[in-house]
Amino acid sequence: MRLKDIGEFGFIERIKSGCLIRNSNIIKGIGDDCCVFRNSGDLATLLTTDMLVENVHFLRTEIPPYKLGRKSLAVNISDVAAMGGIPKEAVVSIAIPETMELLYLDSIYEGLKSMARKFEVNLLGGDTTSSPQHLVINVALVGESREDEILYRSGAKPGDVVFLTGPVGSSAAGLDIMLAKRSFEGREYLLDAHFDPHPHVAAGRIIGGSKVASALIDVSDGVAADLAHICAESRLGAIIEEEKMPTTELFRAYCQRFRLDTRRLSLHVGEDYVLLGTVPAQWTDKLEVALESDGCDFYPIGQMVSELGLQLKCLDGSIQKISSTGWDHFK
Amino acid sequence: MRLKDIGEFGFIERIKSGCLIRNSNIIKGIGDDCCVFRNSGDLATLLTTDMLVENVHFLRTEIPPYKLGRKSLAVNISDVAAMGGIPKEAVVSIAIPETMELLYLDSIYEGLKSMARKFEVNLLGGDTTSSPQHLVINVALVGESREDEILYRSGAKPGDVVFLTGPVGSSAAGLDIMLAKRSFEGREYLLDAHFDPHPHVAAGRIIGGSKVASALIDVSDGVAADLAHICAESRLGAIIEEEKMPTTELFRAYCQRFRLDTRRLSLHVGEDYVLLGTVPAQWTDKLEVALESDGCDFYPIGQMVSELGLQLKCLDGSIQKISSTGWDHFK
Repeated sequence: MRLKDIGEFGFIERIKSGCLIRNSNIIKGIGDDCCVFRNSGDLATLLTTDMLVENVHFLRTEIPPYKLGRKSLAVNISDVAAMGGIPKEAVVSIAIPETMELLYLDSIYEGLKSMARKFEVNLLGGDTTSSPQHLVINVALVGESREDEILYRSGAKPGDVVFLTGPVGSSAAGLDIMLAKRSFEGREYLLDAHFDPHPHVAAGRIIGGSKVASALIDVSDGVAADLAHICAESRLGAIIEEEKMPTTELFRAYCQRFRLDTRRLSLHVGEDYVLLGTVPAQWTDKLEVALESDGCDFYPIGQMVSELGLQLKCLDGSIQKISSTGWDHFK
Repeated sequence: MRLKDIGEFGFIERIKSGCLIRNSNIIKGIGDDCCVFRNSGDLATLLTTDMLVENVHFLRTEIPPYKLGRKSLAVNISDVAAMGGIPKEAVVSIAIPETMELLYLDSIYEGLKSMARKFEVNLLGGDTTSSPQHLVINVALVGESREDEILYRSGAKPGDVVFLTGPVGSSAAGLDIMLAKRSFEGREYLLDAHFDPHPHVAAGRIIGGSKVASALIDVSDGVAADLAHICAESRLGAIIEEEKMPTTELFRAYCQRFRLDTRRLSLHVGEDYVLLGTVPAQWTDKLEVALESDGCDFYPIGQMVSELGLQLKCLDGSIQKISSTGWDHFK
């Protein structure tokens, strides 16, 4: 049997038993955006790590190194945001092909630092090593939060409203425009949605601090795949209303121009790094007001249901089952 | 200019400015075995990360995957030990060639878990991704310590005794026996010194808790290179006495049999993962007693001096300058 036979999540299931050696101070181990454990003080510490591998997560010929650096940290910051936490201290490991230009590396670190400044994250060390062929960047990030404000994937209840904190699909369009090498007037905007995502830390803090939301995740694999994570951890299903899916005008124009399936790009291709959450129906107004009064967005897109699986209420009113397909590294 | 022109440490110098964004709670950032920052509680948190890259740090054809897993975590635990800390929570990122056998990966994780159990470290998550060609494993590890018991590279003073907590050279001999494919009766022992190092956590705790040692590091690049780190951070030099260098009988027998330079292998090739420290001369007895009463070893090998650079007092009594050469990924 090979890895591709069981996929990324099958692999995680396979390895996770036996990983928790002491559990007295552990709030959350494997299975969420961050692990969470108690410090001696009154705040919980969040720890997350994400690895970007050349020719898997990025093409060195396409993404500018500055944006590669920004994205390497941003995807980790987004994981802390998805718990409602504040990102704090980071370490960066990098495996570097021996012939790589220093200026290229400088740009990567400039990008890392600019993202670090934006969110007041310290870069406190790491590991630098050579690589036989491909560039690999790994960031580990510690964050913190009050324990009672942390949001997990497992808290959703039937009837809860499913919401997004920003439009989706633009990153998928950016990936498409890059791979198909298309010309388009909004090309740079869409490329940046893919190359330079903006983690929703402020929204995550508001959602956590509101104490009314029930689950939260960031959209890194696609809305369908990430909502499926909430469903799996909460043992529920969900219905998404297609007409409520927030997308940008440029995304829609791009899909129309090149006859692309907006549904596939907005639901099944990920990396928009907005937050996807659930909130009991009676608290949606309160949460929406809290988010919007602080300049963040709230887009209700559906609801959690007892019946397992994902369903889509299409534009014509019909309801169909949809797959939870998103990015899986091994399938 | 290319990376190989400035080397690993030149590269770190190049990137480290601008990395510290907030400094009010930072005890140690870039430039030691761990970064250290205050929690809200009364313990300091230690955070370290190390990446192992196939064909750079290991050959997949040589190291058993179980020991590769153990070593991936051990090298991080050793970094925490080198600060006098207690390893606590780890996250593991792994980039996996798509055709890799699951059983091979299972063995890696069995190794990770066995090392985790040995030191009561939790594996709390991580990131799994595909790799276009080479296996890459990155561990990030959080540890903790009382702030006043943490030891840095920068605290050594002229006259301080330089010590090791275990013999060195066996890992270098193991590397040699592997690469040269030699037959030798102690082959397995020497290979294990290279494949399956034992982090000196207990020794690190005693040294930190003694409050008399002045600097500490782990031997990951070689005694000369790692002592040079202490010298650089403490703005001093050091003299090592060759006759005091602790080595194993098997190491000496191996070098004699194959006419290898014991000095090169014990001083300039690393990865023994013992601790290398300094202590004021009047406290050596106290530290030795503390270590040995708890089953740890103390080997004084030289002393810190004001004159910069490393010197070796050879077996014939002559003194010669030696280079601080050890492993550098980019040179």
